[in-house]
Amino acid sequence: MCSARTSQSSWCSWITPMLPVLDGVVMELQDCALPLLREVIPTDKVEVGFKDLDAAILVGSMPRKEGMERKDLLKANVAIFKTQGEALEKYAKKTVKVLVVGNPANTNCLIASKSAPSIPKENFSCLTRLDHNRARSQVAMRVGVPSDSVKNVTIWGNHSSTQYPDVHHAIVTRNGKEIAAFDAVNDESWLKGDFISTVQQRGAAVIKARKLSSAMSAAKAICDHMRDIWFGTPDGEWVSMGIYSSGNSYGVPDDLMYSFPVKIKNKSWKVVDGLSINDFSRGKMDATAAELVEERDTALTFLSA
Amino acid sequence: MCSARTSQSSWCSWITPMLPVLDGVVMELQDCALPLLREVIPTDKVEVGFKDLDAAILVGSMPRKEGMERKDLLKANVAIFKTQGEALEKYAKKTVKVLVVGNPANTNCLIASKSAPSIPKENFSCLTRLDHNRARSQVAMRVGVPSDSVKNVTIWGNHSSTQYPDVHHAIVTRNGKEIAAFDAVNDESWLKGDFISTVQQRGAAVIKARKLSSAMSAAKAICDHMRDIWFGTPDGEWVSMGIYSSGNSYGVPDDLMYSFPVKIKNKSWKVVDGLSINDFSRGKMDATAAELVEERDTALTFLSA
Repeated sequence: MCSARTSQSSWCSWITPMLPVLDGVVMELQDCALPLLREVIPTDKVEVGFKDLDAAILVGSMPRKEGMERKDLLKANVAIFKTQGEALEKYAKKTVKVLVVGNPANTNCLIASKSAPSIPKENFSCLTRLDHNRARSQVAMRVGVPSDSVKNVTIWGNHSSTQYPDVHHAIVTRNGKEIAAFDAVNDESWLKGDFISTVQQRGAAVIKARKLSSAMSAAKAICDHMRDIWFGTPDGEWVSMGIYSSGNSYGVPDDLMYSFPVKIKNKSWKVVDGLSINDFSRGKMDATAAELVEERDTALTFLSA
Repeated sequence: MCSARTSQSSWCSWITPMLPVLDGVVMELQDCALPLLREVIPTDKVEVGFKDLDAAILVGSMPRKEGMERKDLLKANVAIFKTQGEALEKYAKKTVKVLVVGNPANTNCLIASKSAPSIPKENFSCLTRLDHNRARSQVAMRVGVPSDSVKNVTIWGNHSSTQYPDVHHAIVTRNGKEIAAFDAVNDESWLKGDFISTVQQRGAAVIKARKLSSAMSAAKAICDHMRDIWFGTPDGEWVSMGIYSSGNSYGVPDDLMYSFPVKIKNKSWKVVDGLSINDFSRGKMDATAAELVEERDTALTFLSA
């Protein structure tokens, strides 16, 4: 656990056996001589780590181990995120913005939120920005433009292999002109096939090559996500984040943490509405919703147990 | 080996057995969706990696292994940096800026430079910015100010435990007023004792805690170093870098890569001159120079062998 105070207070999670290593991380942060960093407080005590937080980044979770069933994985993580949600409830500011990164991120985020009933559900989000960045960069490389010439890709649903990376509304800027991503790529079978599976399976591909999980790209996505919450999304652009579903937006069942396209202003997100959804998209959006419903229902049995 | 093309071409070193892992690093870079990154070329071929380079960051070296003698360590690294210097000579632009990070960085840098005679010696530097940042941050924490309120610390000499972190000319800004670091800290025995040994031994302390070398702080220092070469140092401020000694500046023997205080403008560094050096500093500057002379003389026997 490490509460790094800048002008805002933020927190990331550590467990007791890792405290000696955490001292090394503190040294690393000090040695960066970051001008905005005021203080780093290493701790494994929730009452210290969560105190008066403005921002919480929950990166620690129980990873899936060989032979572990999905149910056991959810059970272990419900225990972790219930504790962290209760700590947020007790010690953090009510305005705290909570980003859950530890997998299964969407359901972990839902559990944390339900364990902190006095903090608005809108203050909780989970990370699908890494998937969003991956989708953006895959299209950019295909078209031969820098990644910031691709905007308004959308990640729908769960941060898992059922996620739906959707470029039906994405725009590519090439030679100063804005064109639909489908026209710029001009290869529908790639966009509806390999593109989607590449983004869905990217985490596993990185682990296979590096023998380690995504690190730099995940950190970059976390920075992008938090910066946009604090400073807003650029005019005319949206980003993807896992947020609390309500009002049956885009036909997504309520009471899930589901990734939507959002615009952010004054630290509040709003789902981008009115996007047309074709049958292809509908099917994929429903499939990932169904997975999240199942995860939630299993997790809730452990939460109330 | 990985040539990352932005508006400039830059390169960092990789060896053949690591190529599968390098594919993972390429994915990580792509997934960051960095707006300035144009292309990443993974390779273990020097003729590809060094071609038309604007910037080279040489991070790979032979680390000291248990039971290895200093001489054997130097021999192995001379072989590596001779090859890289020759590749720079053959394939890079003559304007290339070369930063050596792999240890022993100063002597490795000297060997690379001597192996690339048609590239100006001024284009080679080795990293002591991490030590510089550590010194800055140690003083800042002691005084209770942000690290950017401390300026003009100096690292003299070798990036090793003989380096001399010197704050005799450093300035601390507190409550809007600039004061000498010695007055702000007001603890001469700390500044001449524990402060110096903390900075000198910091790398070992980080390894002991993390079980891994400095990573984030080293990367941050590399960025700081290269940014300052490209965009210059702020008015009235200097930074530390290992550069080619000539003209017996500050009594340092010629023909070493020795860390000095430098100001940078138009991609050229100039040693800050006229700083007063007391006997305490003189002794420490000479000791680290003596180590570098010995390293150089041993390395040169391998270079000509």
